[in-house]
Amino acid sequence: MPTSRDDRVSAPEIDPPHRLLMGPGPINADPRVLRAMSAGLVGQYDPAMTGYMAETQQLYRGVFRTANDATLLVDGTSRAGIEAILVSLLAPGDRVLVPVFGRFGHLLAEIAERCGAEVHTVEREWGTVFTPEEIEAALDRVRPKLLAIVQGDTSTTMCQPLAELGALCRARGVLFYSDITASLGGNPFEMDAWGLDAASAGLQKCLGGPSGSSPVSLSDAAVAVIRGRRHIEAGIREDDDEATGTRIASNYFDLGMILDYWGPRRLNHHTEATSMLYGARECARLLLAEGMDAAIARHALHGAAMTAGLVALGLELFGDQRHTMHNVVAVYIPDGVNGDAVRAGLLRDFAIEIGTSFGPLHGKVWRIGTMGYNARHDTVLLTLAALEHVLRAAGTNPTPGAGVAAAKEVYAR
Amino acid sequence: MPTSRDDRVSAPEIDPPHRLLMGPGPINADPRVLRAMSAGLVGQYDPAMTGYMAETQQLYRGVFRTANDATLLVDGTSRAGIEAILVSLLAPGDRVLVPVFGRFGHLLAEIAERCGAEVHTVEREWGTVFTPEEIEAALDRVRPKLLAIVQGDTSTTMCQPLAELGALCRARGVLFYSDITASLGGNPFEMDAWGLDAASAGLQKCLGGPSGSSPVSLSDAAVAVIRGRRHIEAGIREDDDEATGTRIASNYFDLGMILDYWGPRRLNHHTEATSMLYGARECARLLLAEGMDAAIARHALHGAAMTAGLVALGLELFGDQRHTMHNVVAVYIPDGVNGDAVRAGLLRDFAIEIGTSFGPLHGKVWRIGTMGYNARHDTVLLTLAALEHVLRAAGTNPTPGAGVAAAKEVYAR
Repeated sequence: MPTSRDDRVSAPEIDPPHRLLMGPGPINADPRVLRAMSAGLVGQYDPAMTGYMAETQQLYRGVFRTANDATLLVDGTSRAGIEAILVSLLAPGDRVLVPVFGRFGHLLAEIAERCGAEVHTVEREWGTVFTPEEIEAALDRVRPKLLAIVQGDTSTTMCQPLAELGALCRARGVLFYSDITASLGGNPFEMDAWGLDAASAGLQKCLGGPSGSSPVSLSDAAVAVIRGRRHIEAGIREDDDEATGTRIASNYFDLGMILDYWGPRRLNHHTEATSMLYGARECARLLLAEGMDAAIARHALHGAAMTAGLVALGLELFGDQRHTMHNVVAVYIPDGVNGDAVRAGLLRDFAIEIGTSFGPLHGKVWRIGTMGYNARHDTVLLTLAALEHVLRAAGTNPTPGAGVAAAKEVYAR
Repeated sequence: MPTSRDDRVSAPEIDPPHRLLMGPGPINADPRVLRAMSAGLVGQYDPAMTGYMAETQQLYRGVFRTANDATLLVDGTSRAGIEAILVSLLAPGDRVLVPVFGRFGHLLAEIAERCGAEVHTVEREWGTVFTPEEIEAALDRVRPKLLAIVQGDTSTTMCQPLAELGALCRARGVLFYSDITASLGGNPFEMDAWGLDAASAGLQKCLGGPSGSSPVSLSDAAVAVIRGRRHIEAGIREDDDEATGTRIASNYFDLGMILDYWGPRRLNHHTEATSMLYGARECARLLLAEGMDAAIARHALHGAAMTAGLVALGLELFGDQRHTMHNVVAVYIPDGVNGDAVRAGLLRDFAIEIGTSFGPLHGKVWRIGTMGYNARHDTVLLTLAALEHVLRAAGTNPTPGAGVAAAKEVYAR
């Protein structure tokens, strides 16, 4: 058979430029994670594969600090994990309370609306977090089935305290879900001790991997709700598999079927994204080898050094500093400075990427991350050194050397 | 901060055993695809990243043989692409016709049901395909908005002819969608010439990659339906972005929003799974460098050699041989032979994996694939040589050397 000429769409071999990704994520993946992802594939039901799946579950129990049997990966980006949890827990008409303090709170509300849930939001100014009393009052007013709240909202860099919310939910029979994508691994998180029923994450922030796999965990109470809506696909259903409850309005995100695939029954659902599973496993393995507390302390240290350096360069911090994440800091773009031009200059001259933000903060702040593989002293000092030059070129007057010196002072403590 | 002991969940470095994956997929990924996936990450809006996205779109236009601007990746396994297309095209109450000739037809019907569509199926015995006349009669009876049909159903190895269906749909104002995951790259497919409005695929079959990314393409007519249901997320919405139509019941799978992310507006949706994108790009790049016609001819050759070898080993072919895919063949498990024991023996002694099937064919047939990176003469001859030994151990009486000889005869032609 001849090869037709129109097939000849040519593209060169992949060869991305080097970048130091110091924005709000994704960040540079740990090279060990990328190497793990290049391991050869095995079959879906190969004992090696099911063994890796079971190990991955156990590793993420360690990362989430939970004993939940139902701890697994959803094959997609972090928002796939969010949608899987919301569509599996919320039936049409169910009431859900979503406290919103940034873009990703809006996202939870929007996904819950698409599930047909009755969505109630309470809002806080971007740059602040909720008090437990505010959440408690909203729970009493709305009486929801589910509380859905982001832990770390990268759009504002705020970290919502969750420790007291579990008891409030438990006392009212409310399920408690948090999206911990931006915060996990860099800030304290205790799934069981804090009483969460569901949590979802991603690899591309403090876990040091690429986007594309979403670790999730579900309490027994959450699993019971999902099992109450169980349906098995025609084509692999057996006669005694009875359908119950309101069917989940997604096949791909039906956590009941995904649990059957990851569980002892190994019922075929999707074809597991093996390379992403290898990567997710390596992210958790490296984090636990370091120790969760040590990893969080590392993020706190490098975050503090970056923050001190930015302040010393004359930049003003955004948001309630008592409640920022360790792994990303936002600063106001100085008056008269073109924020996008500064970011472009950093990328062009120094191959360093930092971020701006969304919605009300778009063009008003820069967001600078120190997370995962990039939570290191060299990345902090390089970023501050380069930023000093770009800020000066943009017409501000930073004290020469002040940013790097302030960061070094934090390291010297 | 001390490291608590309970963090110390240990797992060894990833080190999967070598396997030759000769089942219905996933198969061994091309090492070049895995190497491409280990390239360093760049930021989501880095010119290098948006350049790779645009190249990936152009490459898949070549693979799908389409001029569709709306050609992109859905971040998830192949079933993510199916669900994205069905939930984006079908509003609750819309009528859809799903001709079912295997497990994956049932899957299309089940996903469409979860979208709230009015699903009409016609069924064919597993091992056969539909005639255009049968589809035409069903279209006239059901008068659907959408025809959804699998091209290659791996559960049966059948390849449904699609070439004549586009005109039938066009004449009736019906949208035409096919899931081409199992067949693409190994069998002819002509998106535009055959008049398809939507198609979705995966990497883990003839494309030679790992599962986890789903290339999809949409005609202008399909895009118009999706644009009629456009909603932009609160949090990134601007004042003049008006909502229209019945909102798509998924955020993650809202192809309108995904198009805005891949299109010139670059509106943030998910964080693109960069490593999977690198892999998907490499799959298409390698396929087009070989030439689509050459790749299909390669699959036809090795499929024919494998089929001849299996027959020469005394195995009976399953299904209508005029309509099998080039890349996977099913044979009946001989009477008195324990099919799972043979598969386990092949895996244990020779590290070769073959498959069984689902539903009515479970335990009745073996499925043996020759696809993607594994569509090679060495893999065919090794599999036939090993199978001869295992069949003999299972009590059948294959003629010594007959399988390998028959395959070699095909190659010698």
